[in-house]
Amino acid sequence: MDQVATKPHDALAAHLADEMAAVNEVIRERMASRHAPRIPEVTAHLVEAGGKRLRPMLVLAAARLCGYEGRHHVSLAATVEFIHTATLLHDDVVDESAQRRGRPTANLLWDNKSSVLVGDYLFARAFQLMVEPGNLRVLSILSDASATIAEGEVLQLSAAQDLRTSEDVYLQIVRGKTAALFAAATEAGAEIAGAEPEVVEALRDYGDALGIAFQMADDLLDYEGDAGATGKNIGDDFRERKLTLPVIKAVAAADAEERAFWVRCIEKGRQEEGDLAQALGLLARHGALDATREAAFGWSATAKAALAKVPAHPVRDMLAEIADYVVARLR
Amino acid sequence: MDQVATKPHDALAAHLADEMAAVNEVIRERMASRHAPRIPEVTAHLVEAGGKRLRPMLVLAAARLCGYEGRHHVSLAATVEFIHTATLLHDDVVDESAQRRGRPTANLLWDNKSSVLVGDYLFARAFQLMVEPGNLRVLSILSDASATIAEGEVLQLSAAQDLRTSEDVYLQIVRGKTAALFAAATEAGAEIAGAEPEVVEALRDYGDALGIAFQMADDLLDYEGDAGATGKNIGDDFRERKLTLPVIKAVAAADAEERAFWVRCIEKGRQEEGDLAQALGLLARHGALDATREAAFGWSATAKAALAKVPAHPVRDMLAEIADYVVARLR
Repeated sequence: MDQVATKPHDALAAHLADEMAAVNEVIRERMASRHAPRIPEVTAHLVEAGGKRLRPMLVLAAARLCGYEGRHHVSLAATVEFIHTATLLHDDVVDESAQRRGRPTANLLWDNKSSVLVGDYLFARAFQLMVEPGNLRVLSILSDASATIAEGEVLQLSAAQDLRTSEDVYLQIVRGKTAALFAAATEAGAEIAGAEPEVVEALRDYGDALGIAFQMADDLLDYEGDAGATGKNIGDDFRERKLTLPVIKAVAAADAEERAFWVRCIEKGRQEEGDLAQALGLLARHGALDATREAAFGWSATAKAALAKVPAHPVRDMLAEIADYVVARLR
Repeated sequence: MDQVATKPHDALAAHLADEMAAVNEVIRERMASRHAPRIPEVTAHLVEAGGKRLRPMLVLAAARLCGYEGRHHVSLAATVEFIHTATLLHDDVVDESAQRRGRPTANLLWDNKSSVLVGDYLFARAFQLMVEPGNLRVLSILSDASATIAEGEVLQLSAAQDLRTSEDVYLQIVRGKTAALFAAATEAGAEIAGAEPEVVEALRDYGDALGIAFQMADDLLDYEGDAGATGKNIGDDFRERKLTLPVIKAVAAADAEERAFWVRCIEKGRQEEGDLAQALGLLARHGALDATREAAFGWSATAKAALAKVPAHPVRDMLAEIADYVVARLR
């Protein structure tokens, strides 16, 4: 075999290349503003750079495998990408402020203003786009997802650095910040295609579980990833005092002394040299990383199981491969 | 006459008291969040305190005078108030940062985060609410207004403190930050009532012109208002370096020396003792305050003229009185 293994989302992108090109065209068109040239300046680096465009691809994939032959899925895919980009812009405001310890530069503040307002513009553009297909069920799906996303973000704000945060609350936060939009993407794609209710629900469940697996994998890689492959440094979440699943699991099993360690490092943020190594030791002692890995694999399996109710189709197989892939990097 | 003169928006509120109570109930219900108790904490002071609730009242008034007998106007009125409240929250972030000269306190930052995310939540709730009546025309009206608002805010950010800002750009900004939601409120109310297209358009035009008159009056009162009556100090906009209509007019008529004064005070923000008095002198010399007053009265007249195409109704007369009232305080 001298073929280079293709990543499954790249295979799906190739399969849907024409439609993805149409989505990119809609994004470019709708991102523009006749009156406010600053808008494309701010969004260009986010939208043009593109990333994997996984969310819009999920809309197209769900519509395609449900036999859709119209064009509205293109608007909906662009909608989902706009919501995602708006969320990223607002996350920047929320995250950057924390990192700079309450002393942002003037330049950072200017960027914050732009991020807030341009994010609002993209949300509004998303709502304009989602109205166009004229499908009220789809409108409910996408407006509900927007509310779940915002609720999850606020919940994350209050739960951040609060060691009492339970796995249930963690799951709600993850559903908000990641899974809600994945689920809305696949559900909206199936709905616009006029799929049977159980197929719509199955694709929704697939997106939900995929999003959760994806986020748990991210949490885990922060403590044991290969910096070269992930582009992240080991322990970023620890240094930023994020209460992710591995830490929640280790805190639940902690004795009094260990608990004091977590309170100092995460709640109070008084970290010292050697604390990350200590944290890694505690995570290992309580099997927190293995348990997180197991949970991520569980959600990946749930995602694949949901596809059993979806008609056989090459795109269905690609979606199953994507579910495998998000956790395969954890081996 | 020993009757106390009733303000026209209070008279309208009394006329629509039952429906306004229903709107307040929907606002209370939908503002809640099962998972994120911080949300009502942040919004309570904005939403409970209430203010004049002019925007939701405009939705109800337009629907009522078009003979509407359903209940969807209540959801739409709450929608409009949520959009307004979300905008206020995000404006706080944009404005407060500037006031504190790039050095916000930790507490301010925490509030900023909450303001951004809770604002997003209210936007999303607004979209959920507007989907419920199932009227696609109304959805277009309200999602278009949201985009115009965001675009206006971004435009304001780039035009702020830029002396080249023209009256045309000023008008676009005012349409975005104020008139778009007024216009969408009256248009959506008429549309949900199934009014004839020319009545819908007339009510839209009324809201647009009312919003512009309202904003111009605000700009003027900042330079010549009675602090006791307006609750604002004379010259706040000047000190905050806002490029409002009186200044735009004075800059357009400025000679080289005057221009240098405006560049120093507004563009560069290097203000000294006595500058406000100097500014007031220049505004008077070029008749900038009178011209602004005239423009505000012109838009008030435009608002009333639009009502000529609307069926005769007690509520129509109240809307005409409101158009008079927003500029009557300028006499």
